[in-house]
Amino acid sequence: MTAGAALDLAELARAAKAVIPAAVWDFVEGGSGAELSLGANRSALDSLALVPRVLRDVSAPTAGCALLGAQAEMPVAIAPMAYQRLLHPDGELAVARAAKLAGIPFTVPMLSSVAVEQVASSGADLWFQLYWLRDRGKTAELLARAQAAGCRAVVLTVDVPRMGRRLRDLRNSFALPGEVGAAHFAPDQAVAAQRRKDGASAVADHTSQAFDPSLSWPDLEWLRGRTSLPLVLKGVLDPRDALRASQSGVDALVVSNHGGRQLDGALPAIDALPAVREAVGETCEVLLDSGIRSGVDVLRAIARGARGVLLGRPVLHGLALGGAEGVGRTLALLRAEIDDALALAGCRDVHEAAGLRLAKSPAQRREGQ
Amino acid sequence: MTAGAALDLAELARAAKAVIPAAVWDFVEGGSGAELSLGANRSALDSLALVPRVLRDVSAPTAGCALLGAQAEMPVAIAPMAYQRLLHPDGELAVARAAKLAGIPFTVPMLSSVAVEQVASSGADLWFQLYWLRDRGKTAELLARAQAAGCRAVVLTVDVPRMGRRLRDLRNSFALPGEVGAAHFAPDQAVAAQRRKDGASAVADHTSQAFDPSLSWPDLEWLRGRTSLPLVLKGVLDPRDALRASQSGVDALVVSNHGGRQLDGALPAIDALPAVREAVGETCEVLLDSGIRSGVDVLRAIARGARGVLLGRPVLHGLALGGAEGVGRTLALLRAEIDDALALAGCRDVHEAAGLRLAKSPAQRREGQ
Amino acid sequence: MTAGAALDLAELARAAKAVIPAAVWDFVEGGSGAELSLGANRSALDSLALVPRVLRDVSAPTAGCALLGAQAEMPVAIAPMAYQRLLHPDGELAVARAAKLAGIPFTVPMLSSVAVEQVASSGADLWFQLYWLRDRGKTAELLARAQAAGCRAVVLTVDVPRMGRRLRDLRNSFALPGEVGAAHFAPDQAVAAQRRKDGASAVADHTSQAFDPSLSWPDLEWLRGRTSLPLVLKGVLDPRDALRASQSGVDALVVSNHGGRQLDGALPAIDALPAVREAVGETCEVLLDSGIRSGVDVLRAIARGARGVLLGRPVLHGLALGGAEGVGRTLALLRAEIDDALALAGCRDVHEAAGLRLAKSPAQRREGQ
Amino acid sequence: MTAGAALDLAELARAAKAVIPAAVWDFVEGGSGAELSLGANRSALDSLALVPRVLRDVSAPTAGCALLGAQAEMPVAIAPMAYQRLLHPDGELAVARAAKLAGIPFTVPMLSSVAVEQVASSGADLWFQLYWLRDRGKTAELLARAQAAGCRAVVLTVDVPRMGRRLRDLRNSFALPGEVGAAHFAPDQAVAAQRRKDGASAVADHTSQAFDPSLSWPDLEWLRGRTSLPLVLKGVLDPRDALRASQSGVDALVVSNHGGRQLDGALPAIDALPAVREAVGETCEVLLDSGIRSGVDVLRAIARGARGVLLGRPVLHGLALGGAEGVGRTLALLRAEIDDALALAGCRDVHEAAGLRLAKSPAQRREGQ
Ligand SMILES: Cc1cc2nc3c(=O)[nH]c(=O)nc-3n(C[C@H](O)[C@H](O)[C@H](O)COP(=O)(O)O)c2cc1C
Ligand SMILES: Cc1cc2nc3c(=O)[nH]c(=O)nc-3n(C[C@H](O)[C@H](O)[C@H](O)COP(=O)(O)O)c2cc1C
Ligand SMILES: Cc1cc2nc3c(=O)[nH]c(=O)nc-3n(C[C@H](O)[C@H](O)[C@H](O)COP(=O)(O)O)c2cc1C
Ligand SMILES: Cc1cc2nc3c(=O)[nH]c(=O)nc-3n(C[C@H](O)[C@H](O)[C@H](O)COP(=O)(O)O)c2cc1C
Repeated sequence: MTAGAALDLAELARAAKAVIPAAVWDFVEGGSGAELSLGANRSALDSLALVPRVLRDVSAPTAGCALLGAQAEMPVAIAPMAYQRLLHPDGELAVARAAKLAGIPFTVPMLSSVAVEQVASSGADLWFQLYWLRDRGKTAELLARAQAAGCRAVVLTVDVPRMGRRLRDLRNSFALPGEVGAAHFAPDQAVAAQRRKDGASAVADHTSQAFDPSLSWPDLEWLRGRTSLPLVLKGVLDPRDALRASQSGVDALVVSNHGGRQLDGALPAIDALPAVREAVGETCEVLLDSGIRSGVDVLRAIARGARGVLLGRPVLHGLALGGAEGVGRTLALLRAEIDDALALAGCRDVHEAAGLRLAKSPAQRREGQ
Repeated sequence: MTAGAALDLAELARAAKAVIPAAVWDFVEGGSGAELSLGANRSALDSLALVPRVLRDVSAPTAGCALLGAQAEMPVAIAPMAYQRLLHPDGELAVARAAKLAGIPFTVPMLSSVAVEQVASSGADLWFQLYWLRDRGKTAELLARAQAAGCRAVVLTVDVPRMGRRLRDLRNSFALPGEVGAAHFAPDQAVAAQRRKDGASAVADHTSQAFDPSLSWPDLEWLRGRTSLPLVLKGVLDPRDALRASQSGVDALVVSNHGGRQLDGALPAIDALPAVREAVGETCEVLLDSGIRSGVDVLRAIARGARGVLLGRPVLHGLALGGAEGVGRTLALLRAEIDDALALAGCRDVHEAAGLRLAKSPAQRREGQ
Repeated sequence: MTAGAALDLAELARAAKAVIPAAVWDFVEGGSGAELSLGANRSALDSLALVPRVLRDVSAPTAGCALLGAQAEMPVAIAPMAYQRLLHPDGELAVARAAKLAGIPFTVPMLSSVAVEQVASSGADLWFQLYWLRDRGKTAELLARAQAAGCRAVVLTVDVPRMGRRLRDLRNSFALPGEVGAAHFAPDQAVAAQRRKDGASAVADHTSQAFDPSLSWPDLEWLRGRTSLPLVLKGVLDPRDALRASQSGVDALVVSNHGGRQLDGALPAIDALPAVREAVGETCEVLLDSGIRSGVDVLRAIARGARGVLLGRPVLHGLALGGAEGVGRTLALLRAEIDDALALAGCRDVHEAAGLRLAKSPAQRREGQ
Repeated sequence: MTAGAALDLAELARAAKAVIPAAVWDFVEGGSGAELSLGANRSALDSLALVPRVLRDVSAPTAGCALLGAQAEMPVAIAPMAYQRLLHPDGELAVARAAKLAGIPFTVPMLSSVAVEQVASSGADLWFQLYWLRDRGKTAELLARAQAAGCRAVVLTVDVPRMGRRLRDLRNSFALPGEVGAAHFAPDQAVAAQRRKDGASAVADHTSQAFDPSLSWPDLEWLRGRTSLPLVLKGVLDPRDALRASQSGVDALVVSNHGGRQLDGALPAIDALPAVREAVGETCEVLLDSGIRSGVDVLRAIARGARGVLLGRPVLHGLALGGAEGVGRTLALLRAEIDDALALAGCRDVHEAAGLRLAKSPAQRREGQ
């Protein structure tokens, strides 16, 4: 099946699985531990029923919205995901091009397999994702480099003091192939993620060498003082942290359990959302990721208090199926679904979607009949 | 298996599946998206347990009730469903005849494959369902034509500003066969639904050409002013809309998620019912559809606040199995089940059924043992 | 497998299934409609977790308790079940003998396949179950006959104004074999239940001929005036009915959904229990049946407010496996389980069991591992 | 698969199953009755989602904590489990050695298959578990012996007035092999557990001969008066018992349903925890066991109010796979998971883990994808 034939993101995922090498599929798709949070992300979303409105003129529903101060064509940004060249030689550049075409932001991962300057050639609205490195000089350098390349926002990921135990990667002794590496790092550093070790994940090894697990509030203040770009904290679930972040000059939060890849057993992001939203009120923009797979999911997130969402794995599925074009298909599908969902929910725009009521409903995904 | 041998509507559905062409089955049975709402309609109903009463003389329970001011033999009307000739050459006429025999109203769909005047020859109590057309003149004309043909009520469907993405139809590139079409439309318009296009649903294409997605409250007022027939709004789930409708001179509401065919992820109608009922009080008649498959379901709906229900797909199953006679079997089965349920719940009539208590119970359908 | 080898009532059921003719098994085991209530009886019980107590001297827990004023060896009576000779030639007599040995009451069904006088030869503590007959004289005659035979209580079943639609029996065109019949009825009447009719249940046909669906509160008062025996109402689920019964001189209630055989979709008895118990306070004895399959179930019922339980189908399983002895095995197993459960829950007697706390817990039955 | 290759305790269990004789596996793994509580222990834990914190310096999370006044390397002790030589010739000694290496307490079971003095040669922090024997002199003697051997605490198990009906053992006619026996008992007594009897569990038979089911509060006071060691009550679920225990001079409680081996249908320990914790406040240390299988489970227990947990079956899995080394692998895995979970939940130590929020989440364990 080609990306073009897929009718929803689930089909796209199945099609992608058929073309992606098993170990890469596991790296992309897998979660940590028993993958409880991975599964719970979906069941939590599926169990939220929307109450649509009627008799509003939805002849031209508009999905557009402001994300971190810039207009996007839909309330979606591409989530930061490392090493996208694992899926396609064009990697992050292809995805950024598709994002540009779709009119949404692309988040350049610190662990990009294509350098940010090259990604910038896509012309996309770029955000830059930071992990906190043991080498603070390097962190600062990357920040400067990203700003120079035109990145418009900084996304600090705070839920990876270390990498979650992803059993699939350990089982596969997963390592990056030689031709895929962290483009922003010197080869002697980046190579750690390519060094296959039995029963270990080279990617996790690299992480534990490079990332600084001592990252804490004072570091955030240091960062806040160093850049005037909008600052986004990614990986917040507890409203107490959300409140403190909003008081520390953070501009936006991504409520996320990292797609079920970090603490297994962590609350699904969608279920963490209401309390976070209430804690920060209007002082921060609240985004959400983890498990978003349809336009209805986007409306669920918005109706529960998010400004928008980040899209993760489905982007990589599209990428594997056809580079920029494949990602384009992913984004076009999602966009069509959002437009549909808005219209069918009686919402002329995403602002109205925020006013939709939700109810718990014991829904269950069915395959055909 | 013939319709006659089926012991409940589930068996009737299985029997029908065996005789209906696969693509037509998918068109009839399918829902939108991941079919979450389609499934949730059933699980929500099944999880509602009734608390029966005892020691009331139920030697002659009566299922009769007034629907939109006329007496019906049971609290059931036939839901509007397009293109019934897909299931049987006699199409809507056969169904109307069976409705007449069963003493319940038949809703003529705007997209009927048999003209309303011909359907009227059945002598059934007819309601006429309207979609809002881009061509307002045509809408008005159809309304007049329906009134002239003796339709006694107008049902305005408000949950289809566009058609839900029904993946089965897209997968099947579903189109109407040449011999089935919208009888109330000029051939050059109706043909759109017959024009097979790869990866598309011709029915959806026709809808998007013909229907006016800008339908809103002022249009409703226009319609209200144009007819003195009872006016029914079909597809309401949010109590805020219900309240406004009741204030706009609407006589009845159908709480419905369109059988899981429009917004996937929409609340099951049965779960939306209590809030709607409370919002409108006694100012509006409240009907319900979406997932009704047994007499017990009818009692569930009534106990939760509905005056009665519309019956959807099971009617088409009966139709496929044996035309008017098959539909008769469907209605006879349902009627027998309603009588049984009334008696076993200790209700002498549907009014007493409205006083039954309900409780959530984690029931699960079992197949044999 | 013999009854003797079974380790719990579930195993006993499986063993019984192997020896019982399929249509009889279906008659015994089946429920009405989609068998939702049948299944819900079990899942509702399984989902109730007990909170055991500790450090109480349980060296000699006693299961004994008073049921309708007489002492029983355990808080269990045999439920009334028609036509027990379907399972074994000795029928009700065998069961009554086993009940006598186990020291618990046996309820003689009005539709007994062995005459009450013969059953009385067992020496068991007998209760007599009445259905309300169209022929009131016959009802009175049976009542007198039962009293004369030594029955100590009257159990009026109020949840069968008509028989529930049991699809298995309809599918099997179930009829009693010639050698099994209603011993208290003249052959010309009893024969109705033996007359096989395609697509029909002869037992249901007989019921609809014989039973009076107009049974209501005045009839109950008539009955109350006619006998000074303890009067039990079987089949009450709504607390409003329970309250009225207690005010009408009824001595005990059986909270029951008739083992899922009458109104499909009726609340599991165990979930109806608390409200009924609260409604009647100490004015009535409250018993429960429907789904009891273990000693833990008995404690669940008691902890939720029942004085004791009636045991249904497991008795017939034992009967099929070995007559009186087989039933003895059923009762011995249950007794052992009750003793175990009392001891392990830290209860010296059933009164202490009534003080146990319960909590909802999402338990799920597992088969082996 | 060797213990070393297992990536989590579930894999370790599967590997162990492959090497353990079926009847021993059943003895170890099985629960009582329908194994409802056994299963519920897991589903209750899995359904508790943690809300991680961020931006706390977790470069060196410490799992250390005080258990009964002594420092342990992690908030885990080895649960008392009888007859560990069933799994490996070194039995309890091997496990104690592994506990010593891991820096956690080992609970010597009264029914140890290795004498406490020999176990003491491991140098581990030892607690001694007591069952209440009919022979009070023997109880006192064992207590003195344990103290003399250096046991530092006494754990009185209060949920075994008799053994739960473990159907697997009955089915297997389970008996200890001749070479495994209760080392603290005279051969003529211990042999009862080795005497195979058809359809019976020799271990249960031994228990019922030896244990005193009359154990009650006064006995506890006698015991309290007889030793100045910390006194732990194991098997408490009801907060009323917990409160009374705390008032009776008990130092610690183990909230436990005995791993689903005693009252089937008993509340999962994790669900009993909050009420117990609230009842005793800070007057008692509260530990928990039953179903703990991962580091995340340990955090769940702590976040719900436990000081630490006892680890049961996974220890025996490790033991079967490789003696002390195998147990070492179990403990190393768990330790790694705890460290991971602490870091990923943003906790610098277990005290911070106690402040984590929990939410119910309908998680479901998935196998691969
Ligand atoms: C293959 C892969 C790589 C990822 N790499 C990063 C990363 O480098 N930085 C980061 O903050 N998040 C990373 N994430 C997490 C995503 O940003 C996002 O939180 C997650 O994928 C959302 O869940 P979803 O994939 O279910 O939509 C990664 C996720 C995946 C699947
Ligand atoms: C094949 C089919 C065609 C339908 N066509 C229409 C229609 O033309 N107008 C309308 O208002 N509803 C239409 N509906 C929706 C029904 O009126 C009704 O809301 C729905 O079928 C109820 O759910 P149920 O089938 O589960 O009972 C259609 C439904 C089906 C299954
Ligand atoms: C085969 C069968 C026959 C029954 N016949 C009667 C009857 O004659 N009168 C009556 O009151 N209840 C009758 N019952 C219902 C039982 O008294 C009881 O309510 C039910 O079996 C309890 O549920 P359980 O079987 O799940 O324990 C019958 C039940 C069965 C299974
Ligand atoms: C094989 C086995 C033997 C046990 N023996 C004892 C014992 O002698 N004394 C005791 O107090 N608990 C005993 N237990 C219960 C454990 O101490 C503990 O409560 C239980 O195993 C915890 O559940 P888990 O195995 O699911 O972690 C035993 C458990 C098992 C599995």
